[in-house]
Parts: sequence; structure tokens; C-alpha cells
Amino acid sequence: MGLQAQYIRRQGNPDDIPDYTDYRPLDIGSVPARISAYPELVARLGGEPCQWSVREVGDGNLNYVYIVEGPEGSLCLKQALPYVRLVGESWPLPLSRSHFEHAALVRQDKANGSVPEIYHYDGPQALIAMENLSSHITWRHALIARQRHETAAITMGDFIAETLFRTSDLALPADEKKAEMALFSQNTALCKITEDLVFTDPYYDHPLNRWTSPELDETVAGIRADPQWKAAVQELKFSFLTRAEALIHGDLHTGSVMVGEAGGDEDVRVIDPEFAFYGPMPFDPGALIANLFLNVFAQPGLGDKPEIYQDWVLEQIERCFNRANSCFFNLWRTERTGDAFSRKLFEDQGHIDAAEIAMTSFLTRAEEEMLGFAGAKMVRRILGLAGVADFDSIKSRAVRVECEKRALVMARALIVERGSLKNLNAAIERAYKILRDGQ
Amino acid sequence: MGLQAQYIRRQGNPDDIPDYTDYRPLDIGSVPARISAYPELVARLGGEPCQWSVREVGDGNLNYVYIVEGPEGSLCLKQALPYVRLVGESWPLPLSRSHFEHAALVRQDKANGSVPEIYHYDGPQALIAMENLSSHITWRHALIARQRHETAAITMGDFIAETLFRTSDLALPADEKKAEMALFSQNTALCKITEDLVFTDPYYDHPLNRWTSPELDETVAGIRADPQWKAAVQELKFSFLTRAEALIHGDLHTGSVMVGEAGGDEDVRVIDPEFAFYGPMPFDPGALIANLFLNVFAQPGLGDKPEIYQDWVLEQIERCFNRANSCFFNLWRTERTGDAFSRKLFEDQGHIDAAEIAMTSFLTRAEEEMLGFAGAKMVRRILGLAGVADFDSIKSRAVRVECEKRALVMARALIVERGSLKNLNAAIERAYKILRDGQ
Repeated sequence: MGLQAQYIRRQGNPDDIPDYTDYRPLDIGSVPARISAYPELVARLGGEPCQWSVREVGDGNLNYVYIVEGPEGSLCLKQALPYVRLVGESWPLPLSRSHFEHAALVRQDKANGSVPEIYHYDGPQALIAMENLSSHITWRHALIARQRHETAAITMGDFIAETLFRTSDLALPADEKKAEMALFSQNTALCKITEDLVFTDPYYDHPLNRWTSPELDETVAGIRADPQWKAAVQELKFSFLTRAEALIHGDLHTGSVMVGEAGGDEDVRVIDPEFAFYGPMPFDPGALIANLFLNVFAQPGLGDKPEIYQDWVLEQIERCFNRANSCFFNLWRTERTGDAFSRKLFEDQGHIDAAEIAMTSFLTRAEEEMLGFAGAKMVRRILGLAGVADFDSIKSRAVRVECEKRALVMARALIVERGSLKNLNAAIERAYKILRDGQ
Repeated sequence: MGLQAQYIRRQGNPDDIPDYTDYRPLDIGSVPARISAYPELVARLGGEPCQWSVREVGDGNLNYVYIVEGPEGSLCLKQALPYVRLVGESWPLPLSRSHFEHAALVRQDKANGSVPEIYHYDGPQALIAMENLSSHITWRHALIARQRHETAAITMGDFIAETLFRTSDLALPADEKKAEMALFSQNTALCKITEDLVFTDPYYDHPLNRWTSPELDETVAGIRADPQWKAAVQELKFSFLTRAEALIHGDLHTGSVMVGEAGGDEDVRVIDPEFAFYGPMPFDPGALIANLFLNVFAQPGLGDKPEIYQDWVLEQIERCFNRANSCFFNLWRTERTGDAFSRKLFEDQGHIDAAEIAMTSFLTRAEEEMLGFAGAKMVRRILGLAGVADFDSIKSRAVRVECEKRALVMARALIVERGSLKNLNAAIERAYKILRDGQ
């Protein structure tokens, strides 16, 4: 960022964190009056404020989310609170997360498009008005109900490849990318949640940890005494702390993916990027496949004949990853306009072979690290603060414990053995073995 | 960085890039009048401005540097120009590099201390007044003259370990480190010089490349047609672009190290950190050992019996690295107060073994990458814009070409074979083989 850009930023760049002095938290009763202040939203809903229905639907851990319906249209209103909704005012969390969520949505929309349409952003109110997706459900709930959304894996593969590639040094000049990185580097409070809840707290006696049954106590003690496991997770945390490779979503689990219909076709959207920052590329695909693996390991508790649906979910993991890889390949070949792996040195010299060698080696390393992140994300959902509906909805305690134990065996394999597993196919084979043998 | 920090920053944080509206470049004639405006400098020099002698001594590529001597003391005055001194006004370069140099000096002084004392910083004039080290010489010139400064390797080992460790996530909480990273991420123009001159230009037909003799043309063509070499260098560049691990010096060659005497003892200082930013830790030690290797390979052209001095320089490489490693080990054990590899998970649980496993694995990876960076830095000094006195001072063209060819064989080994070399000892053995056999 040159001096010019510095100067402009000081004059009031839209990327500046808003002044929250006039922030007022909404409740169901105050939503219509607030919306009345935004003409484009009034026009979208139609009619008078008294004709608008409002309901609160936030099932995440952080925010309130309102669905507002009027005679002519509807919308979704998401407002950040100055604390964590799940815990309350005792756990403050900056309103600026709404700023980074909006900034990330804009960039993801430009890079890929599979995000909700934004209707209005009110920075100082930490409030984003966007497309109402309340006829969709989360992919997590669809997977628990054993529904088959056949396009989700493909859409997510494209989302992962396009958002990561197009915000990275592969696509952007270094100065542009560094300015983006500096912007999102201010999202420290949300990064810290991941640093703590994913990479730290499950590995020692933190008071907010929870697991569903005392039968896991021994497993937990084993993990905390396992030097290789802890060292490997801390390597992944170091990567999360230091590797500013791309604007990552940062919380890409199956609850951040909405599946539904639009115009008769299946429709898939990615929501909730308030954890976005410049981090390691493999974190996002790792998070998604972690949550798909969790569903696979939960299936014995979710109905009869788990094998059939497990096969389907494991196939989706493979399809999503293969799609992400082939989309990334294609972008590498056609949109490599950034400062990394410059075409000047490869294609422009007729050395396409060297560019392909570089790409293969790049993706090979990313695949191995993705496995590690996936393992870390699995552990945090079984032993950390935030559980996961896939397991929590298993009624039989004995079955649930057995499922969770196997998932933890899988997590260890992904984290500690990622160097020998090396690729996703081997990891999927490993998953089949653990499902069969318990180890 | 919280909102509070944001707010303070906007109010005029000393880390803000200065306003350069009133910047005026100095020349020898105008230095005394300028100094008269700084009472602490006037007091240091003593006497009247007419009694001060001023000479220009900058032998770097970027700036003017003045030594000012008065009746009671002396100082060094370094001012940035709005362009690259080596090239002229046709290559503009932001004055803000002086801001980052000063910010880096302050941090290196706090972390380690082996830097010039700062007497005064005038931000808007891009001017740093500091300790006069003109009785010192650069380590490069000492090495060319086959002098033996026995403490340089040790001082540099400590400098590397302490500046890298204490500015990293190993020492700092994540939010503090991210704010530091964001500050230095604005030093894009200087980063770009490294991105271009080290990692890009030597590998294609860039008009600013130069090498000393047409006998190297064939070697150059071979490098540019070598897919593995190019791919490996681009991996290193990606690391340089993305891995915000520590505040690196960014230009730590033997010309940035001053050796001399102070109080009867050998004195070693590190200067010129205007390239500083948050980058990969192995870049600094890689740069230093690269320049020591260059000297080793230049020795046959610098006098009789090169073997004796080559042995000494190779020993300094080993001593410097071993000292950096043992200093880093010690800091890992005693000062790991940051968010990475938190003691909460290791020492506090009595799991010192796990912390040692993590450290060993951390340093093993760093060592391998250091070799790669060293190779890249060797190439740029032989085939890129900026040559190096070690080779340039060899009078016999035939000898020089032979030296440079062997240095390039070494560079390729470091870059392409770093995965099989793995450690510095193997690299030094490789150097001996190349010195002996030419390959």
C-alpha cells in the first residue's frame, strides 16, 4: 500500500472499522423501526412496517439473526452483539466482527458468488441486511437427516478453490494482498476464538471444555499425555498464526453451508464468514471435511444401515476435494496474475512443465496439511466448548460414546499420521478401516 | 488490536507513517544547518556548526549516509531519498522506508542490542541520526581481506535467534504480533525489491540482470530452462510472500554487518534494516550464510592458499548457525510467552518431552528452508542486478568465472536438493565437494 493509499485510508476508507458510539442492539420489537430508516429495504419488503413480521432464527453461537417478511419480499438481518451470545455478557466480543463479515462477504461474492446477496450494510450498527435463506437448512442438519444434496460437494469445491485462489498471492499483486491482509489482521478477537477453542483448550484442562460422557475421560487423558499429538496440533496452530496465504472463511463447517432450492434447482450458499482473515489455505477445506467425517462417524447413532449413507458422505468428501483441486488447477493455469509463481518465469518462457511441477508440489503440501487441520477440527467438536449436532443428537449414550471414540481415532490419524497418509484417498481408506475395526 | 488501539492509532500513533510534505533532501553543505535544529545532536557534537566536518560515506545502493564530526563527538546521519540511489530518479522508492528502518532498529535493539545506538529520528525528514561506526568496516570487506573477526559468528547467531524469537508468536500474544505485522506490511516497496531481485528477475531475461562474463551465458540459459530450479525458487518466494513468522531484517548480508573494535574488544553491529517486515524466520540466517558461502567460493580469486581461509569461513557458518540454534533453544525453554506452542500445554503439564519434540521438529523444518533461501540469495548476487564485492574484486576473469560457476552449483544444491541435504552440515560437506570437484 503506497502513501497515496495510506492517505485515502485516513480520510475515511470504507475498510476502516466503523465508530460504534451510536450502536443500539435490536430486539424483535425494534426491528421494523430500524428497517424504516433504510429506503432500499422498505422498498424490498413493501407495505407498511406494521405489516412486517419479524422472527429471530439465530442458531449460531455468536449473534442474533432476524427474518423479516413483508407483503412484497423478505430479508435476513444479522446484527453483532458486543458479547458471545452462547455465553453472555461475561464474554465480550468486538462488534467489528460484523465489519469483517461484511468485507469477507463482498470478497467471496466477487471471487465465487455462492453467498447470500447483501441488501444493505450499516457499519456503525454492526448490521448486515441480506437475502433470506430461511427456506434452506444447514448442510449439517441435512446430513443428520440423511438427505442427499448432490450438488453441495461441487459447489463447495468451487467455493473453496475460487475464494482461496482469487484472494491469494497467486492472483493479486503483493501490495494489494498485503493491504488486504493488514485489514483482516485486525479481526484478532475472532482469530483468538479459533486459536483457543480449536488448537489449545481441548489439549489441557480448560474449564469450558465439555464432552458428552465420562466414558471418554480416559481417552481425553490419553490425548493430553500424547506428546506427538500435542506437538503436531501446535505446529498446525503456528501455521494458523503465521501463514497469510489467502482470505479464508475461517469457520467453514457444515453449519455454515445452507442447502435448499432456488428456481427448481438445488441451491447451496456459504454464510457466516465473521472469522475471515488471511490464513493458511488448507484450513477451510480441512474444516469442511472434518465436519463431513464427524457426520460419517456419527451415522451408527443416527439410524439403521449407516453404511449406505456413510458411503455417500465419504464420496462427497472425495468429490468436494477433487472439485476444489481441479478448479484450483484451472485457475492456476488461467488466472495466475499475482506475484507468486509468476507466469513470466513459466508459461511466458514456454516452460509449462515447470509450472505444472510447481502446482503439483504446491497442492501436495496443501493436501497433507488439510488433513491435519481436519483432525484438529474434529477434536474440538468432541472435546471442546462447542459440540456438534451430529453427535449430540444420538440418543443412546453407549452408541454415541463408541462413535465419538472412533472419530477421535480418526482425528489422531489425520493429525499425527498426516505425513504418512499424505493424501485424502489414504485418509478415506483409514476412515473405512476405523469404522470397521475401531482402530 | 482492539478498538481502543485502533482509536489511539488514528490519533497519531508514533507507528503512523509520517507526512513527508516538508521533506528536504540533504547534501554535504546543508547537513550542519539541519543538525542545528536538533539540540541533542548539537550537544553531542559540541562546538559550533562551522567546526563540524561532514563527509558522505554511503556505499549501499539506496541512501545517502553522512558522518559528522565535531569537537566533542560524532554521529552518523542516514537519510532516505525518494528514489534508488544506485539507479536514480527513474526508480522511485518511498521515503517511508526510513520509518520502517527506524521502527525495526528500535525493536532489534530491544530484542538483541547489537545495532547502532539511535540519537534522533526525524520522521518527516526520513532521517535517522545514530552512532558513528565509521571506524568499523563491513564484514564483507573484512572477509575479502581475509581478516578473522572471531566473535562475529557468535554475535550474529545471537542477533538472529533473539530478533526472530522475540518478535514472533513464540514470544508475543497473537493480537500484538498481528498489529506489528500490519505495521510492517506497509513496507511493500522494499519487499518488492526482494521479491523481484532475489526470487524473480535472475530466472528470466530481465534487462537489469548482469553477470561479469559472457562465459556464464550458458550456465544462465541452463538455470532458466531448469524446471525444478525455477519451481523450487518460486516455492521460496511464496514463503517470503506469505509466512509472517517474525520481524526479519530482510537484507542480512555480510555488508549489513559492521565489524570493528570498542573498548579494546571486538565489536559487531547490524545495520540497514530498511527491508524489515514480518516474513519467514529462515530468510535472515539464509541470507547471512549465503554471503559467507559466496566469500568461500570467491577465495581462489582473492589470494594464495584459499583453503586455509575457506576452512575458517565455513567454520564461521557452522558456529553462527549452531549459536543461533542453541540461543533459540534457550529462548524456547525460557521465554515462550506467546500464543504459539503455549507452555500451558507442555511445561505446565509436566510434558517437557513434548515441548522438545515440537522444538526439534520446528528447527528441523527451519534449517531445511534456510538452505533454500541461502541458495536463492547466492544466485541473485551472481546473476541479478546487484553484484557482490567478493567476486567483483577478483581480477582474473578466468578465475572469477570458475569461482562463480562453482558458487552456482552450490546454489542449485541448496535450492533444489535442500530436501535431501536437510541440514547445514550436509550443505557444508557439499560445499567442500564442489570446491574440490567442481560439482
